[in-house]
Amino acid sequence: MSTSATPPLSPLTITFGPGNATLEPQGQVLTRRMSDLEGLFVDGHAWRQAVVDGDPVVYTVVSSPVPEVPRELPQSITTIYPGDTGGEFWMTKGHQHPDPQGEIYLGLEGRGGLLLFDGERAEWLDMGPGTIGYIPPGWAHRSVNVGDEPYRFLAVYPGSAGHDYGWVLAHGMGLRARRGDATVELVPFGAPASASDNPTRPQE
Amino acid sequence: MSTSATPPLSPLTITFGPGNATLEPQGQVLTRRMSDLEGLFVDGHAWRQAVVDGDPVVYTVVSSPVPEVPRELPQSITTIYPGDTGGEFWMTKGHQHPDPQGEIYLGLEGRGGLLLFDGERAEWLDMGPGTIGYIPPGWAHRSVNVGDEPYRFLAVYPGSAGHDYGWVLAHGMGLRARRGDATVELVPFGAPASASDNPTRPQE
Repeated sequence: MSTSATPPLSPLTITFGPGNATLEPQGQVLTRRMSDLEGLFVDGHAWRQAVVDGDPVVYTVVSSPVPEVPRELPQSITTIYPGDTGGEFWMTKGHQHPDPQGEIYLGLEGRGGLLLFDGERAEWLDMGPGTIGYIPPGWAHRSVNVGDEPYRFLAVYPGSAGHDYGWVLAHGMGLRARRGDATVELVPFGAPASASDNPTRPQE
Repeated sequence: MSTSATPPLSPLTITFGPGNATLEPQGQVLTRRMSDLEGLFVDGHAWRQAVVDGDPVVYTVVSSPVPEVPRELPQSITTIYPGDTGGEFWMTKGHQHPDPQGEIYLGLEGRGGLLLFDGERAEWLDMGPGTIGYIPPGWAHRSVNVGDEPYRFLAVYPGSAGHDYGWVLAHGMGLRARRGDATVELVPFGAPASASDNPTRPQE
């Protein structure tokens, strides 16, 4: 089987039927609190305040028992809680796969977005029940809750893929998702939080 | 990442939320009629008769646009129509992956079964909405409609996996799924159709 005749995919959304979910039997459960997300939100002052004000759970990841090893195809369900920090919607840390492998996110509940970045181009996919977000190999990916309820999705990914969180800290994600007037507002990754949100925010 | 400490998985069922589906945008669509399934049903006489009597569509496979090449993660939705041939439930051809890779089937609609065979052991997983059937690498797999309505599932599989249909013709699938009194009856793969079903069936 040759890959040379097939051009690389760009991210795309594939429509799919609705549903919501837990995984049973259950493997590892990961809980990310605000204090685990240092350096992710552009507004460091608002982030610190949120840590002090109860350090809320931002998201959880429930894995199936299928292990993350080559040739297996593990799954997990991520739940991102609704909220924003300095106007920036709550989100996952985001990661790149050290072994470039495609992945799918299947929207289950709530309203979300899938932000993808290959180091040059950034793409945003609207996600919700009935949507498969396809993550081509080589694209870093982050999920965002843009609604008022928990946003939940099923991930399916080759067990060899791995998680490189440092890539996102070093390269960013191209865009940030902020709470807009009626919908999500996508702004350049390096842009500061708006002055009106954080009149006393230090330059950091 | 080492794989040596993780024992090989046996097939397992993982509970998941309901839904039903088409794929949009759509890639290749495969239609399998009865005439495409020569040698699959143990009752060759009943199979021939069904081909003559209208050659019905037994199943269809709608693929997403994600290509079947290494590092991509394609998806497809299979619909198996309800019926039996000589008492044997309608089913897919079944295949083995030339490149041993795990796969998931996610039940969307109807009642089905996932038959797995590694050349020695056969496993049967009851499938329906809310169930993920996990196919570990190295297990041939066939799907069966055991209900009265179309049985539909979403497959997610690494693009490198491939399809070897000849393996099943050479090795069988360990078990066959027959229409029982109230439920599915699993019989050894080599067993002939019951005499009461086919009084005039030639020995073939």
